Amino acid sequence: MEEHRYSHRVLARSILTRPDGGAALAGQTLCVGGWIKSRRTHRGVVFLALSDGSCASSLQVIVDPEKELDTEQLHTGSCVLVKGELVLSPGKGQAVELHAREFLHAAPADASKYPIAKTKLPPEFLRTVLHLRPRTDLISSVARIRSALVLATHTFFQQQGFIHVHTPIITTSDCEGAGEMFQVTTLLAPEKREHLVAPTQDQIDAARELVTRCGDTVRKLKENKSSSKAEIGDAVKQLKAAKDEEARLVKRAEDGGADYSADFFGRPAFLTVSGQLQAETYACALSNVYTFGPTFRAEQSHTSRHLAEFLMVEPELAFAELKDDMDCAEDYVKFMCQWLLDRCYDDIKLMDDKLTESGALERLQNVVSAPFARITYTQAIEMLKEVKDFTFDTPVEWGMDLASEHERYLAEQLFQKPVFVYDYPKAIKAFYMRVNDDGQTVAAMDMLVPKVGELVGGSQREERYEVLVQRLEELELPLDSYEWYLDLRRYGSVKHSGFGLGFERMLLFVTGLENIRDVIPFPRSTGKAEL
Amino acid sequence: MEEHRYSHRVLARSILTRPDGGAALAGQTLCVGGWIKSRRTHRGVVFLALSDGSCASSLQVIVDPEKELDTEQLHTGSCVLVKGELVLSPGKGQAVELHAREFLHAAPADASKYPIAKTKLPPEFLRTVLHLRPRTDLISSVARIRSALVLATHTFFQQQGFIHVHTPIITTSDCEGAGEMFQVTTLLAPEKREHLVAPTQDQIDAARELVTRCGDTVRKLKENKSSSKAEIGDAVKQLKAAKDEEARLVKRAEDGGADYSADFFGRPAFLTVSGQLQAETYACALSNVYTFGPTFRAEQSHTSRHLAEFLMVEPELAFAELKDDMDCAEDYVKFMCQWLLDRCYDDIKLMDDKLTESGALERLQNVVSAPFARITYTQAIEMLKEVKDFTFDTPVEWGMDLASEHERYLAEQLFQKPVFVYDYPKAIKAFYMRVNDDGQTVAAMDMLVPKVGELVGGSQREERYEVLVQRLEELELPLDSYEWYLDLRRYGSVKHSGFGLGFERMLLFVTGLENIRDVIPFPRSTGKAEL
Repeated sequence: MEEHRYSHRVLARSILTRPDGGAALAGQTLCVGGWIKSRRTHRGVVFLALSDGSCASSLQVIVDPEKELDTEQLHTGSCVLVKGELVLSPGKGQAVELHAREFLHAAPADASKYPIAKTKLPPEFLRTVLHLRPRTDLISSVARIRSALVLATHTFFQQQGFIHVHTPIITTSDCEGAGEMFQVTTLLAPEKREHLVAPTQDQIDAARELVTRCGDTVRKLKENKSSSKAEIGDAVKQLKAAKDEEARLVKRAEDGGADYSADFFGRPAFLTVSGQLQAETYACALSNVYTFGPTFRAEQSHTSRHLAEFLMVEPELAFAELKDDMDCAEDYVKFMCQWLLDRCYDDIKLMDDKLTESGALERLQNVVSAPFARITYTQAIEMLKEVKDFTFDTPVEWGMDLASEHERYLAEQLFQKPVFVYDYPKAIKAFYMRVNDDGQTVAAMDMLVPKVGELVGGSQREERYEVLVQRLEELELPLDSYEWYLDLRRYGSVKHSGFGLGFERMLLFVTGLENIRDVIPFPRSTGKAEL
Repeated sequence: MEEHRYSHRVLARSILTRPDGGAALAGQTLCVGGWIKSRRTHRGVVFLALSDGSCASSLQVIVDPEKELDTEQLHTGSCVLVKGELVLSPGKGQAVELHAREFLHAAPADASKYPIAKTKLPPEFLRTVLHLRPRTDLISSVARIRSALVLATHTFFQQQGFIHVHTPIITTSDCEGAGEMFQVTTLLAPEKREHLVAPTQDQIDAARELVTRCGDTVRKLKENKSSSKAEIGDAVKQLKAAKDEEARLVKRAEDGGADYSADFFGRPAFLTVSGQLQAETYACALSNVYTFGPTFRAEQSHTSRHLAEFLMVEPELAFAELKDDMDCAEDYVKFMCQWLLDRCYDDIKLMDDKLTESGALERLQNVVSAPFARITYTQAIEMLKEVKDFTFDTPVEWGMDLASEHERYLAEQLFQKPVFVYDYPKAIKAFYMRVNDDGQTVAAMDMLVPKVGELVGGSQREERYEVLVQRLEELELPLDSYEWYLDLRRYGSVKHSGFGLGFERMLLFVTGLENIRDVIPFPRSTGKAEL
């Protein structure tokens, strides 16, 4: 049996996830390390369930009293590195067990203090011990599924010819002009606090008065025929300086008063809400790209579906229209589901077993076995209006944004599988989405899935320079902030499309867990940023 | 020839990176899309070099005047989707060329305005057009190399049984108590500015006076035998409230005045400088984990080696000692180099051709062909003291931190290959590094490489509870902030080790580029956060 290359022990998964459960390895002497999940004693023989996090199952370790090994302190939570012989297990539930011969390492955990000594602990409690909860069956399974989906994501896109691009976390652009953003600053450090103080109205008034006086001086000098050019030039310079200072103070008062020239980046900087716009710059050069990284929303929200920090996968495809975009999103989601069925079956099974309403396995099998539905927004509205067996909180009418209740009804009741809704009303969508020929809708799409609702949102991007400028103006967005974005349409513009998939939502979908705080290792939300 | 699944065109790499350069495909009719890198005309025939970013080479597109296609506006920077016949090329430098039959899409770029119309543009200029520079040969090669290393990283660690963990970007812990950190806040929004104002000394004095008065009241009530329990109880409550208010004001004054209870997370929050400590929580449950994500330093720095936002790869290995840690780091770096030789040969070759002192190919070949050197810090100091042919700016003596000049001399002159230096003096290293038996050194290691200097820094972590507490106390770090970290040693402690690899430094190493701003798509440094 091959040892793990960097830790001189055999991983539990190399034994337990074999088709024979490890039976063919019986008779071998080997080393296993991990943490004790449970302990019981029967007629002097100690039975330890040992988990090393490499797979969903624990290895049973048997300590016979004849061996005279010290197990007194080895309770739940203890760590051991144990050498022994693998033998066929007479018990049910496992093919093999390890008969301990020697403990090479043993570190106890005081059962009376160990916060997660009990076996059935509710997720709410586990969120208060983020540093220990990966030792539980549920959270360690989530971690393995999450990790598998990370590799699945990179594998899928790179196999399909996409190039990964690291879009920035700190940004001075706001993707949609919407969404509350976190500010990134060094101005709150004590030695920089003076730059935070807003200019007073008196200071602004004084600056304004100086502008008037300088203006007067210039006017008088110009009226007076004996003034020299040099004199007038100096006075104009002073006027300009006074105007700049006034503008700076007024701007500081508008900005909230801080003097951003003293901040690290010399201007206000924020945490990204999406890498899309920056990814487009690379798509308009390398044709197919994707980003996969953290994004941030400073929205006060206490729901089970929102986080302040979460992961997004955002591909961007040149020479692709909305249909291609949907094809790509569908392939990607199917690829992830198949990947989990192939590689994380035990962990998905554990979700089904541990959670009362998971349905994880069946959901994955459904996703890979049939094409997703595709309907226009207008069709979706018509279908929702026909619904008789259910009353929505928000009445359905064309032009509205679909609420979660509508999205889930479409995916869960009407189609019972993932469904794309596309061609949304222009008025409820972002400036960069391509305007359709009807002038009323844009080439946008959402993928709605059972259990979660919106999993993917995407669109074809407006590649026509004039139309894009018009949209920016309609929405009163500052054109000069988007000059670089417009350049992509000025120079060799290309039809392109892209989407964003919420990685944690995908995890809710595949695990069946209800709360998004349980599918990310270190959840951040209003008032919460532990560790 | 198979089309790219989502964009109805053949990628240039599926033609040009075949061993025969595409010769076997001659005679096929196909569609290719991309941006024009250069244009020349010879006897009425237009020759376009077309690049789609999928590989280092461009495809030659020939437009014969007989075809009567409009090429008037198709200059450098234009985008085309062109259908034509692939034929064997009579010219040198390519096996095949595409004879255009039809332009399915053509978007011009005004050559007189296109910022990167010229062919030889210095990197300094390209940094001013971040949104267009991926269209240049050099930056697009860097992007492909970078993307390849992302997949190589995930593939290496997952093949070796590591589980990927997303450690948080927003954190309330500081890994080493060192390093200037960016603060993340919503307090600078205009409506929250009132919470930024520091309490005045008058306010604090008034609060203090109230405490004294409440204290007097309590004392008097207690002295007076006729006071009821309820009366005393109320007065004690008031005293406590007054004390809390005073403490809050004093704390705000210390914090720099801001009232963090009004901030998004209810306390000061920062951008992470390292995911290590959080990754350790998962390593002490899942045994082998790694993180790969952005980290931040708010250090004023204008060097070509530092960024405010950069990527780190940080594995953490349970049951592993320092030697195992070095083995893992060496294997990982070799794996990446072999991966590039196997998959990005053309891009590495381009670096060698375009840069005067790249040496990229030779450096990669050296790395994969021999074991890295390993010496102790004490040996390194002795070797550096022996150096006669070079005078260091900083004189060499035991106890010092090695400067970049020493690190590079070791890797470039003395070993001419990567070298590990390990067992550093305790006094210059972080609290979490395991103290060696000599009491003077810690089990820390750095991997030094030619061209770059320090590429990897790692250590065995202190797993002994008492020793760790002692180190925290020695360094006067606040114990209560590290309670969760100490819990990992209280409950089933395990020997473990880890390291951090600077991803952009790895890119400098493999490309031979000199400036770190050229190996990351959107560089952030003092005063710079474009897009």
